[in-house]
Amino acid sequence: MRMKRDETLAYAGSHRARFVEELKQLVRFPSVSAEPERRGDVVRCASWLADHLRLIGLERVRLVSTRGHPIVIAESRRAPGRPTVLIYGHYDVQPAGPAAGWRSPPFSVAVQDGYLHGRGASDDKGQLFAHVKAMESFLRTSGRLPVNVLCVFEGEEEIGSRGLLALLRQNPTLFEADIAVISDTRMLRPGLPAITYALRGMVGARLTVRGLEHEVHSGHYGGVIMDPAHVLCRLISGLHDDRERIAVSGFYDRVRTVSRQERMAMARVGPSDRRMLWEAGAHMTAGEEDFSAYERATIRPALTVTELHTELGETSGGASIPTSATADLDLRLVPDQDARETERALRARLARSAGKGIPVSLVPYTFADPVVVSPLHPALRAAANAYRVGFGAAPAFVRSGGSIPVAAALSAHGVTPVLMGFALPDDGAHAPNERFALANFFRGIATSIAFLSEIGR
Amino acid sequence: MRMKRDETLAYAGSHRARFVEELKQLVRFPSVSAEPERRGDVVRCASWLADHLRLIGLERVRLVSTRGHPIVIAESRRAPGRPTVLIYGHYDVQPAGPAAGWRSPPFSVAVQDGYLHGRGASDDKGQLFAHVKAMESFLRTSGRLPVNVLCVFEGEEEIGSRGLLALLRQNPTLFEADIAVISDTRMLRPGLPAITYALRGMVGARLTVRGLEHEVHSGHYGGVIMDPAHVLCRLISGLHDDRERIAVSGFYDRVRTVSRQERMAMARVGPSDRRMLWEAGAHMTAGEEDFSAYERATIRPALTVTELHTELGETSGGASIPTSATADLDLRLVPDQDARETERALRARLARSAGKGIPVSLVPYTFADPVVVSPLHPALRAAANAYRVGFGAAPAFVRSGGSIPVAAALSAHGVTPVLMGFALPDDGAHAPNERFALANFFRGIATSIAFLSEIGR
Repeated sequence: MRMKRDETLAYAGSHRARFVEELKQLVRFPSVSAEPERRGDVVRCASWLADHLRLIGLERVRLVSTRGHPIVIAESRRAPGRPTVLIYGHYDVQPAGPAAGWRSPPFSVAVQDGYLHGRGASDDKGQLFAHVKAMESFLRTSGRLPVNVLCVFEGEEEIGSRGLLALLRQNPTLFEADIAVISDTRMLRPGLPAITYALRGMVGARLTVRGLEHEVHSGHYGGVIMDPAHVLCRLISGLHDDRERIAVSGFYDRVRTVSRQERMAMARVGPSDRRMLWEAGAHMTAGEEDFSAYERATIRPALTVTELHTELGETSGGASIPTSATADLDLRLVPDQDARETERALRARLARSAGKGIPVSLVPYTFADPVVVSPLHPALRAAANAYRVGFGAAPAFVRSGGSIPVAAALSAHGVTPVLMGFALPDDGAHAPNERFALANFFRGIATSIAFLSEIGR
Repeated sequence: MRMKRDETLAYAGSHRARFVEELKQLVRFPSVSAEPERRGDVVRCASWLADHLRLIGLERVRLVSTRGHPIVIAESRRAPGRPTVLIYGHYDVQPAGPAAGWRSPPFSVAVQDGYLHGRGASDDKGQLFAHVKAMESFLRTSGRLPVNVLCVFEGEEEIGSRGLLALLRQNPTLFEADIAVISDTRMLRPGLPAITYALRGMVGARLTVRGLEHEVHSGHYGGVIMDPAHVLCRLISGLHDDRERIAVSGFYDRVRTVSRQERMAMARVGPSDRRMLWEAGAHMTAGEEDFSAYERATIRPALTVTELHTELGETSGGASIPTSATADLDLRLVPDQDARETERALRARLARSAGKGIPVSLVPYTFADPVVVSPLHPALRAAANAYRVGFGAAPAFVRSGGSIPVAAALSAHGVTPVLMGFALPDDGAHAPNERFALANFFRGIATSIAFLSEIGR
């Protein structure tokens, strides 16, 4: 097996120039899922990707349509008795944002100073494509992959993965696999790769307090009728106690206590408070005492308000009491909290606090359960070994404060998520001037080859 | 004097058809002060009005330019030894709002069923023009007015009267007068006119809590760094105590206790709780106990939130902690509260509650002191008598919950404001299908004639 792996690595090494040209083609598609006018580009990107998967020899390649953008699915089932690896990625990208922020146009992909520049280069086309090129390297050298593979490349990650999550609910058997490789996370820094072994869960929900049908004059009615914005502020303010803990009954009951040993390991590997503040551009921290910033971001739940707004009615004459006030609540959960159970508790808490007769609604738009995989799990050990081959370095095992609904859903179906990131913190994902280091693209391909070899052994 | 008055009334009575045609011309100007593209229309309306005032025989007619729209000023100083009456009105109008809401186009003025239909017909062109036609009636019958008159017709009432308030501060002697007639308020119902003897004051101020320069991911930083929207909600929530009183130290110290006698009179004349709720379209009241809805709207201060919003940075990638959160606070004041003193107290309170290191700003955009004139004041008695002549009915004396910064500023300069409304509650000011009852236009002219006569007696 070692020989086969090395032959495959050699193939990958000798085709780098072509791989980069192909990645440039992929990044050139402005597959912005959030912009309806890009619908055609998104579909063209999916088709190009499907054609490419066919070209390298994957089977049953197809576009599965959803209510939104299609999912590209491809398989290779020629390793009987071997595990099935689901390879996940997303071909959709964030909006480019204001053109003025970009040094070169976001979709006119250029290679400079060892980086491929363009929207989506790092998040997630470059990372996804590393696995594609790893598969090609196997198929062109051995004619088959060392494991069974199911590729799932979605086009809606940046807008909530609705289509894929719906398909997972409707047709879970389609996604049967032992492990899911997800390369949509970050390394700690150049030369120090990371395996993310835990993600926070999430409930995203829109809280609305409704007042009158029409806005009314704040002079004539201020102090007389209910002020929806004030009620909203009161409700939100009441969701934290004065120790900045979330004041929802039973909220912390299921929060798993993390061992002293793991917290010490986290302190060694994870960013210091100072570094986290520096990365965020912040001067002071907030949140619970007794936990470091990294711990608060990963092993403790949090509730933030990601949007506030008020609505007026049809006319907007001067000083008016709005007809409604709305907040988007972003609740991050940790093992063993349950997203739907938490949303129910939050809803009950808000209804109770609002008081009788005040119309309050909570409409959830995202659910993701927290995910944690033991760093001792064989698939994570295999990933660590693969990084040693691909990057010449042992990866750090880290927790992330973010949430990947697809990872949570797959985990709930018994598929172990393996989060192997090839991106750098300063790649500019979601920002102007996104880029992907070609060195990490090549190391990512080698890591994927080593990982599939080891899993198939 | 009675003979002269009756002759003047007779003139007005016999020229009604022409007066209506002229009012139609005035209403046809789309003088929307809030819409920069209407700037030309606003100026053309001011010029037309100035020409008209010259035509009827007023003197020193001029447009006084401001940073915004011009003020039309005209005088008549031929009554030595008699009081000077400032006649205030505004020729600017609210935006028409969505065309779909209007049964006939807002500026294609039509007369139907005894109403003149069009944006600004009631607020404030029709009311302003009633005084103009009263003056014409005197000038054409007696060659002079029974009092000295200073007309001040501004073009920025709907956007805060900035230009006029600035001129008042810079050049207060220009506005020297004994009383100021302001016809920009409402009657209680058809046949029951009203004199507004009290207005609430106002502080409008924008409260902003600033977070980071750039938004950050709510997964990676939720629970770690300050959440500006949450801090804003906490600050706003803390501005009321649990009895719905405003929790600013010393806030109620200067609130004048209204006599039992006046509260009883208010209960007789003013709207019932049920009626106020019905007019607002509300099902339940809010605010302080121990006061009726009408009392809470007029003799008690109030704080409402008229807008909430959050800002993201340049990119808007999914779930982010906003860079800032903002609320517009609308504080209504009653005698003897002071707008600037109150704003300082509010600012101090917010700075204290925010806590060290949290950047909070409060930027005021409107100041108006409360106004109250005794119903026994001779000018108000004269106004009541004038209504008896013009409407054949004794007016009610009412308090308003609204604020008129110009009335407050004139009052502060020793000019007694006399708020004589000719508009009906269902005229649709600030709403689609605004209209003005021609009967009230004619009665308004007669009331103005009778008022000027009585003041000049």
